[in-house]
Amino acid sequence: MKVGYLGLGRMGAGISRRLVDAGFDVVVYDVVAERSVELVKAGASAAPSVAEACRGRQVVISMLPDDAVLNAVALGEGGVRDSLPVGAIHIAMGTHGVAAIRALAAAHAAAGQRLVAAPVLGRPDLAATGQLGIVSGGDAESVAACQPLFEVIGRRSFNAGATPDSAVVVKLLNNFLLGCAIEAMGEAFSMARKYEVALDVFYEVLTDGLFASPAYKVYGRLIADQAYDKVGFATHLGLKDINLVLAASEAAQVPLPSASQLRDRLLAAVAQGDGDKDWSVVAREQARASGLE
Amino acid sequence: MKVGYLGLGRMGAGISRRLVDAGFDVVVYDVVAERSVELVKAGASAAPSVAEACRGRQVVISMLPDDAVLNAVALGEGGVRDSLPVGAIHIAMGTHGVAAIRALAAAHAAAGQRLVAAPVLGRPDLAATGQLGIVSGGDAESVAACQPLFEVIGRRSFNAGATPDSAVVVKLLNNFLLGCAIEAMGEAFSMARKYEVALDVFYEVLTDGLFASPAYKVYGRLIADQAYDKVGFATHLGLKDINLVLAASEAAQVPLPSASQLRDRLLAAVAQGDGDKDWSVVAREQARASGLE
Amino acid sequence: MKVGYLGLGRMGAGISRRLVDAGFDVVVYDVVAERSVELVKAGASAAPSVAEACRGRQVVISMLPDDAVLNAVALGEGGVRDSLPVGAIHIAMGTHGVAAIRALAAAHAAAGQRLVAAPVLGRPDLAATGQLGIVSGGDAESVAACQPLFEVIGRRSFNAGATPDSAVVVKLLNNFLLGCAIEAMGEAFSMARKYEVALDVFYEVLTDGLFASPAYKVYGRLIADQAYDKVGFATHLGLKDINLVLAASEAAQVPLPSASQLRDRLLAAVAQGDGDKDWSVVAREQARASGLE
Amino acid sequence: MKVGYLGLGRMGAGISRRLVDAGFDVVVYDVVAERSVELVKAGASAAPSVAEACRGRQVVISMLPDDAVLNAVALGEGGVRDSLPVGAIHIAMGTHGVAAIRALAAAHAAAGQRLVAAPVLGRPDLAATGQLGIVSGGDAESVAACQPLFEVIGRRSFNAGATPDSAVVVKLLNNFLLGCAIEAMGEAFSMARKYEVALDVFYEVLTDGLFASPAYKVYGRLIADQAYDKVGFATHLGLKDINLVLAASEAAQVPLPSASQLRDRLLAAVAQGDGDKDWSVVAREQARASGLE
Repeated sequence: MKVGYLGLGRMGAGISRRLVDAGFDVVVYDVVAERSVELVKAGASAAPSVAEACRGRQVVISMLPDDAVLNAVALGEGGVRDSLPVGAIHIAMGTHGVAAIRALAAAHAAAGQRLVAAPVLGRPDLAATGQLGIVSGGDAESVAACQPLFEVIGRRSFNAGATPDSAVVVKLLNNFLLGCAIEAMGEAFSMARKYEVALDVFYEVLTDGLFASPAYKVYGRLIADQAYDKVGFATHLGLKDINLVLAASEAAQVPLPSASQLRDRLLAAVAQGDGDKDWSVVAREQARASGLE
Repeated sequence: MKVGYLGLGRMGAGISRRLVDAGFDVVVYDVVAERSVELVKAGASAAPSVAEACRGRQVVISMLPDDAVLNAVALGEGGVRDSLPVGAIHIAMGTHGVAAIRALAAAHAAAGQRLVAAPVLGRPDLAATGQLGIVSGGDAESVAACQPLFEVIGRRSFNAGATPDSAVVVKLLNNFLLGCAIEAMGEAFSMARKYEVALDVFYEVLTDGLFASPAYKVYGRLIADQAYDKVGFATHLGLKDINLVLAASEAAQVPLPSASQLRDRLLAAVAQGDGDKDWSVVAREQARASGLE
Repeated sequence: MKVGYLGLGRMGAGISRRLVDAGFDVVVYDVVAERSVELVKAGASAAPSVAEACRGRQVVISMLPDDAVLNAVALGEGGVRDSLPVGAIHIAMGTHGVAAIRALAAAHAAAGQRLVAAPVLGRPDLAATGQLGIVSGGDAESVAACQPLFEVIGRRSFNAGATPDSAVVVKLLNNFLLGCAIEAMGEAFSMARKYEVALDVFYEVLTDGLFASPAYKVYGRLIADQAYDKVGFATHLGLKDINLVLAASEAAQVPLPSASQLRDRLLAAVAQGDGDKDWSVVAREQARASGLE
Repeated sequence: MKVGYLGLGRMGAGISRRLVDAGFDVVVYDVVAERSVELVKAGASAAPSVAEACRGRQVVISMLPDDAVLNAVALGEGGVRDSLPVGAIHIAMGTHGVAAIRALAAAHAAAGQRLVAAPVLGRPDLAATGQLGIVSGGDAESVAACQPLFEVIGRRSFNAGATPDSAVVVKLLNNFLLGCAIEAMGEAFSMARKYEVALDVFYEVLTDGLFASPAYKVYGRLIADQAYDKVGFATHLGLKDINLVLAASEAAQVPLPSASQLRDRLLAAVAQGDGDKDWSVVAREQARASGLE
């Protein structure tokens, strides 16, 4: 399969390398040209433009940081829409908003192309080792056509539904639930501190039992240790995602009080200068309100 | 060790049976006399009153449904305080509030007795098989003295801190975090439904990854299936526990917005007649607000 | 009419003086005996006990600081219930909770007495000049019997409903709405500050138009000036009232999200050492979260 | 003064007529040509385009329904920016968002023009009679130049600050505070109903005392009567405004929990089919959650 790959950040570099190593014909592009060097050594071709990375490809994958970049790359002049062959598939793997993905789907449909949204679950280390989760959304035939790629990229793929936005929403809700768990832990640890509970023991109780899962183990640890400088996911990025969640909830007319609360907490963290800390720093905001800082 | 056991509901029956089978000298009491029959067959003695179940015992364990019953049994005339020998230990294993446990600790101290709070994590089936988690709180010597009992009763015990209320707070916060996870899932599933996401797939995504733990597996399933009649923990009991959480947060001056939100959601469920449903029915309340019911 | 009067704090002193001056036969009692001196000079009799202040009276009025004192004075040994003649009326004018008032109503009914709740609107200066608002609740006949007293005490009286708790709830909700207005202004003024709006102008816009009323004029001024040391109503008292509101909402199964939010805000203010400031200090808590302090 | 006037809806018709009657040289434009007829009879000229309404004018006033229309009219080809003389002033009187007004201010500055934001307080009947409040924001000289117009248009004008967005924010916050008052009343009336309080009496208590102002009188009446079909301001417009408030709070890093709560409540009302009702219908949403509907 002839594949184009747009966006060679840490996630994109890992994913595209998996495809090259698996023997796919891959043309890569990034606005920072040096990011292609290693991939070319591994067997990829480097394109000088988005348009060249799309020309003649059956599939083009984008892994881009936000909706603005996606819009520019996909819908700008000489972008994916203008360059991808009729019938070809654009797989959008970044974390995007519902409105952007819906507009993109419509634009591709008008150009005779197809859109599959396939956001991923996992960090760059999992991308490099093919251990990502992949959540796909789109018409059944298009998603099926992408399956050989998904098998190389990820540990497991999930088909969220018949529209690209179904996959987008699953990814956003996964992040939303993570944010809610962090917020709840932040509140709980503040109260535990006030009652002089041994925090390590509290952490053990949680992660030994009902909450024996990565969300609580990773973020519970950060909160117990107040180690907000270990940035896995920055506050301002968390705020961006929660804003996408809120926008999606508005479009679907779903009140989402926990997302609103999270927004306010993240915003408070940003207002107090913690925007570049790990987003678990919302726990500090709670501690402040409790008179602990 | 000479043990008294007060309260032979489903949890208490399982726990006291473990102690009998392990060879402890156990005197049991419950306001419903028939509940003692099986235990007596297994080797326990049945006491005709709280006082008789405490007399001459080194340890008395209570497993009672709420603070009111605990107060009556422990502090009423002829209760534990009046009957337990000086130096003996009262282990309170029920889920109680901070104020009740603090008052109880003071009363026992005044009578020369000791209080260890040791609420448990797990349902009756785990109690019967010795698989409970036990969270203990109290002075180190007293907690150590209870350890032989804990080893028979539970899979693992955790020492939360040097005061009984430290254990109480850990148990309450564990329930609080569970309630928060349920509320967040309720919101998330409503949005997933509005975007026509395949709910089983959404459930798989969550429980395969960040949320691969009992809290999400058990309650995510109930919410995905809208199976609120499968009552693991009733709404009105959830409300009771969240009110204990809120009271504890007030005593410690910790604002706890997620607990407040949960209170309102549970209260709304009760107001609409769902007080006897499983407390995951807060998801239905969210669905209502989203125009889905 | 023979009247007993219990509780001669700043409100009670003003109200009872109005009754004395209007020619009623008034026996007063306060736990602090000196508080009766001025009233006796004006024509009242001073009783040495609650019981003596109730004996032979057709009406006894209580104006007490909280539910605990009300319970002690009304239901303790030698209290109002034990001393008031059959058929006589107890008018409870303090701000009390629904549960306390319901229990009191039941106790008086069992003793053949009657309860009218009649909380007042206004501060001591209005009490002294007969300018209070009075919100009464109770059976129609009893309320009618109190009317001659209300006419002397207040500028206007309102009959909230046929039960004492209807009046209690109106008073609590009035305070609740005030707290909500304060919270909303706190949020608004924080944003105004961030946009470098002239705060006096903002205050003028509000109080010249939609919000030209005492609640906004008085508290908007305090917030615009950050003058939280001018204590009209202390934070810890505000918290007490909001807790009464929340308890009443629980009893009636009414989720009350704005009260929950207010509770958390007031609790945060207390946690940060502002419990003795005016309760408009919740605006400072909002300013903190906005990075303004 | 030579004035252009863009947007002749109910507000714009009233305001522009005031200017004509006061003797100003006014050229009007609306996308619906008939809206100019009455004004031309009164002495205005009708322009065939935005550009013609701006040409040679010292001031052009826009009164447009939302940011999208403002952007099109002001920044589209042949729009205000393209047509207004250097040095002239654009007075934006609609209710707009901070981002739109900031972008507009920058565009006008780049074109050598000036922007004054001057949103108004009041409904069409007040516009027709010159009884509006006007909140202006902009550099002092420009605002001073507009004063003769404001004197004809309004009862009173307020200068919010030295930037156009200061005025925008005051107007948005005014609406925000109104929404908060409505939400709080919705909660309070639900509880009053549950306690069988006489609702008219409750209304009287509020509006006789702390809340004797239009916000509470007008909306308290609607809520007491559940008269949500009397649409003063529709739910979907309220939601639009609250979203502008939230966007402004995000830009300034101000968490605004009451706005978030209001958003969710309004969204729930829309989800349940009440989007075209008066925005006081959030009280029905509260009643639903309380089991009253």
